[in-house]
Amino acid sequence: MAISAPGIAFNGYSEENPQFTLYSHHIGPNGWKAAQALSELGLTYRTIFLEFGNDQNGMKTSEFERVNPNGRIPALVDHSANDLTIWESGAILLYLVKKYDTTYRLWARTLEDQALIETWLLFQVSGQGPYLGQAMWFAHYHSEIVPSAQDRYVGETRRVLRVLAKQLGREGSKGWLVLGRFTVADLSFLQWYLHAYRIGINIQEEYPVVWEWLQRMQERPAVAKANVGSVFPKQEFYNDSGKE
Amino acid sequence: MAISAPGIAFNGYSEENPQFTLYSHHIGPNGWKAAQALSELGLTYRTIFLEFGNDQNGMKTSEFERVNPNGRIPALVDHSANDLTIWESGAILLYLVKKYDTTYRLWARTLEDQALIETWLLFQVSGQGPYLGQAMWFAHYHSEIVPSAQDRYVGETRRVLRVLAKQLGREGSKGWLVLGRFTVADLSFLQWYLHAYRIGINIQEEYPVVWEWLQRMQERPAVAKANVGSVFPKQEFYNDSGKE
Repeated sequence: MAISAPGIAFNGYSEENPQFTLYSHHIGPNGWKAAQALSELGLTYRTIFLEFGNDQNGMKTSEFERVNPNGRIPALVDHSANDLTIWESGAILLYLVKKYDTTYRLWARTLEDQALIETWLLFQVSGQGPYLGQAMWFAHYHSEIVPSAQDRYVGETRRVLRVLAKQLGREGSKGWLVLGRFTVADLSFLQWYLHAYRIGINIQEEYPVVWEWLQRMQERPAVAKANVGSVFPKQEFYNDSGKE
Repeated sequence: MAISAPGIAFNGYSEENPQFTLYSHHIGPNGWKAAQALSELGLTYRTIFLEFGNDQNGMKTSEFERVNPNGRIPALVDHSANDLTIWESGAILLYLVKKYDTTYRLWARTLEDQALIETWLLFQVSGQGPYLGQAMWFAHYHSEIVPSAQDRYVGETRRVLRVLAKQLGREGSKGWLVLGRFTVADLSFLQWYLHAYRIGINIQEEYPVVWEWLQRMQERPAVAKANVGSVFPKQEFYNDSGKE
């Protein structure tokens, strides 16, 4: 469900005839990450929401595995490039900024500055996302309650939060991870942290510099527009409620 | 411990005066991944091996956290670029190929082909590495034996292996992930899989197409040269030996 201001067009594409198809999920953070980048760059897209599993409209169907052999969202099809299909949210973000961010609003001109952005973006996809995802799994979806596993992943999530709080709070940061300005690296962290309450972490109270950073990103008009339709499950802390 | 053929130099650097400093670990796969890419590109480097923890020479010392605020290996310092410091193995690989692979031996010329390489490389850093790492953790390092957690991560590791086996075995692959040739995406998967026996997966017997791919990569002279000094702990299956 891409919502574009009427009349916005890019490369001849429009809201009615969007340039991209995004495969996403109503809750899963990684699809929203891709939507936010598309929206920030003023690109038009339609979203197809899939479900977990191999039922009709599922991510594990042979139909969708022809789009993404890994059977996960997000996947992005660029209709302006012979339906080139990119998956892995990090690869999608890099493709979008490299090809379409020609004025470097979320990206950078030099290879050296790009490498700094990529360092933090890769930390998101290999560190923040997987640890938060595992913490969520053991809090809400695992077959049994395993406190030592919950502790491990909530602990690693807190460790990553401390690294970010230090980076955002350092002298000269201007409140952003690198280059003293908002980049796609900052954006990549947003959506997972909007779910942190589900593992009992209160970012606002515990990591206020991180919270302010998340607030600034959420308030960006393009991010807010992209997030219409995103679902946040009601609050439940693992140590109170155990499994869903 | 970079071992270069005598006389090889690049940008005025040499084995005695190497262009890069690589922070690595004798066992940890991600440092070797960076070494292999440096070696493939004929770049000179010296390696500083760190230990886990915050003892002297540890990754969690304040001294090393000035290099990598996340306190992990690998980190790479490019002395030819004002000591620019890149961390996260995926970001290191991308920096190296974008800047130094000027003939596209591991990389590609067009943004579209680069995006296909990045899709699989990002799958390695966000999927293969984290799942195998967690399987390793619960097999050998966790505070208690948790069969359901071991099953989860060994199962996810097998799922990723099936995705790769299918991709490598598809018509026209020529035995590589994308573009019908060896790229940095293939290379990124090698080192973690050389440790798969430690979680009871026998890639040679169970996923022969993957095994052949790993063999072809290991036999590349530059990869073999980079791996001198790498340590592989002796075989131990979690279901026999439990914790180390």
